[in-house]
Amino acid sequence: MQVIAEIFSQGEEIVSGQTVDTNAAWLSQKLVQMGFVVKRHSAVGDNLTDLKKLLQDVSLRADFCICTGGLGPTIDDLTAQAVAEAFTLPLQLDTVALEQISRYFSCRKRDMVDINRKQAFFPQGSQRIDNEWGTAPGFSLQYNQCWFVFVPGVPYEMKNMFTATIARQLSQRFVLQPEQLITLRSVGIGESDLQQKLNTLILPEGVQLSFRAAIDDVQTKLIFPRDAEQPLVRATVNQVAESIGDYIFAIEGLDDSQGGLVEVISQLMRQQQLTLSVQETASQGLIAAKCIAQPWLISSVFNLSLQQQTEKLAIADYLNAAVSIAENRQQQDGTQLVLVQLYEGNTEQFQQKDQSIKLFTVLLTPSGVIHKQRSIAGSNTRKQNQAAIYALDLLRRYLQNKTR
Amino acid sequence: MQVIAEIFSQGEEIVSGQTVDTNAAWLSQKLVQMGFVVKRHSAVGDNLTDLKKLLQDVSLRADFCICTGGLGPTIDDLTAQAVAEAFTLPLQLDTVALEQISRYFSCRKRDMVDINRKQAFFPQGSQRIDNEWGTAPGFSLQYNQCWFVFVPGVPYEMKNMFTATIARQLSQRFVLQPEQLITLRSVGIGESDLQQKLNTLILPEGVQLSFRAAIDDVQTKLIFPRDAEQPLVRATVNQVAESIGDYIFAIEGLDDSQGGLVEVISQLMRQQQLTLSVQETASQGLIAAKCIAQPWLISSVFNLSLQQQTEKLAIADYLNAAVSIAENRQQQDGTQLVLVQLYEGNTEQFQQKDQSIKLFTVLLTPSGVIHKQRSIAGSNTRKQNQAAIYALDLLRRYLQNKTR
Repeated sequence: MQVIAEIFSQGEEIVSGQTVDTNAAWLSQKLVQMGFVVKRHSAVGDNLTDLKKLLQDVSLRADFCICTGGLGPTIDDLTAQAVAEAFTLPLQLDTVALEQISRYFSCRKRDMVDINRKQAFFPQGSQRIDNEWGTAPGFSLQYNQCWFVFVPGVPYEMKNMFTATIARQLSQRFVLQPEQLITLRSVGIGESDLQQKLNTLILPEGVQLSFRAAIDDVQTKLIFPRDAEQPLVRATVNQVAESIGDYIFAIEGLDDSQGGLVEVISQLMRQQQLTLSVQETASQGLIAAKCIAQPWLISSVFNLSLQQQTEKLAIADYLNAAVSIAENRQQQDGTQLVLVQLYEGNTEQFQQKDQSIKLFTVLLTPSGVIHKQRSIAGSNTRKQNQAAIYALDLLRRYLQNKTR
Repeated sequence: MQVIAEIFSQGEEIVSGQTVDTNAAWLSQKLVQMGFVVKRHSAVGDNLTDLKKLLQDVSLRADFCICTGGLGPTIDDLTAQAVAEAFTLPLQLDTVALEQISRYFSCRKRDMVDINRKQAFFPQGSQRIDNEWGTAPGFSLQYNQCWFVFVPGVPYEMKNMFTATIARQLSQRFVLQPEQLITLRSVGIGESDLQQKLNTLILPEGVQLSFRAAIDDVQTKLIFPRDAEQPLVRATVNQVAESIGDYIFAIEGLDDSQGGLVEVISQLMRQQQLTLSVQETASQGLIAAKCIAQPWLISSVFNLSLQQQTEKLAIADYLNAAVSIAENRQQQDGTQLVLVQLYEGNTEQFQQKDQSIKLFTVLLTPSGVIHKQRSIAGSNTRKQNQAAIYALDLLRRYLQNKTR
């Protein structure tokens, strides 16, 4: 039996287009993975009449609805009031919620202001959903055929609350038969090239193939029917992985979750007890920033003067220049690994989205130098991100090849 | 009189979360700027019953609805059929549309396949909307109180069709008077404190006040009625700005757009011909990364060893340590300004979202040292971002105070 879910986003910033509603897509993915059929997304602004009407409509057609936003302390945060009025359930003070809110402020050495009290009032009969990541707790309640969950719209809080509490409650409350989702995460290859590589592959019946370009990687997704047997799943995944090749840095959904590029690198750096120094140019701090709080990252330096010097290099000299910078850094920092990235192209080429720059990435290792060359284009922030990702991917390839 | 608009996105990839619906936000922004009140976004999948029901509902409550997606050639593209069935209007061949579609293919030296013929059938009484950017034309029609426009979901085609044709049709068809939006952008103060500061303020009638927490700043938004006079708008904005104080770094919508924190800083750094070096700890590269391609950022350094040394400092010594690091960096780099940020707290406190760390931010300037102390909490990436923002904000305050 299908279990129907809807997603409901509340906020003027959504309907007026100030904010792209990424929450809805994130939640849909999670719900589909769990086995829900997501039938509709709706977004309305801070308007009590619209909110109430939508809540009533949803209560009659969905089995589950998750609502984001409108739980803040200010006058335009109307969700709890709308629920109370739509379902004729008076708002009541939840003393535990109040206690949690005031603790949130005292931990941050700030005074709780009066308007935050409002966030501790829930419609009668609601269950509180703790929020350790922000001020506003969420709440859940059943009305008509639908179980409603209300969470803040701040993505960081919403995602944490979903993972920590709501996902478990959903699997207890509903009989769900999830499809099996396997995600192959890759760097350095685009969606259309991925599709080209898999064109001739014949997938077993009922297996769905799709692609998704995220900011830091491209994901190839395989959805297997609920009852697909494990040997078939593994054989198919292996076949797809082989066709794609070593662009893949992680396969999720088969065994343990492997996570993003930095998580994969971090695990290997720790296992192999290695340390790293970085010299950044086009990435300008972003390699270091992506490796936040990793004990193996010893230093990262960005110098505008280095970038200006390298602009004068002949194209044949970039590689040698990068290697000699790496050797200097190794002497200074005593790290086993040094990652140096230079780029050919001037400031204007870097800034113009239609112009490309050429990256020279060098990794100095105990067993010699490995390097890679690559052109990138797009806005300056896109170039910056791609530069950081390609540098980290060179490191990932070195670490994974050592263990293969 | 309010002219009510809705946005309706069609596609399994939207409701299943494979694609983030950026079209809806883009269209909303355009419509709000034109003077529409956008009341609702809805997304449904490739399901004829759901589509028909939604079309009927919208036709009774909106003055205008723009629908994206579902105009492709394949069997899961159901929009035209749903419109035909929902409004009992038979599908009819538009020969000009067919001609356009076949020309699209012949221009690209490709054969038009039979299934593309489907894209030339529109519900009786529709007006075709030419699409020079892809295969599928769009169409428009009036039903009940609502004027519907149907366009493809491909962002590039949709945006071009909106700009080339639809925007003009809208201004001819509706009497629109855009509201005036002013945004006051601030750093270092939360939504509830902002509201508290503005609680006693009496706004002129018809002025709407709202708040929005973005990643890097908090925005106070004032919407003035279409016919509000400029002196009143300015006086009100000044009053609000004064109540909030120097947390505000930019006011948008009054004169020229001022942009984000880094854009504001950048303008002042260039005007005052200043240069900057940075020493990062908690921000770990993110201060530099946020200042991508700014010619006044001379260097940025992150060292794990510095972080480890400062962990051993007594609380009273942080400020002096930061100043002496700043002086060293100034000698090395010759920059007029040096930003150094240290933090009290060990790695575990940094990693734990419930634990706070204390930031000591120092800015060395030609006229002496300014500094600020501040506690931050949250996940490590949140701490990292807050640290970078607070460091940049200290710089912004120095630069703006100089010019006041």
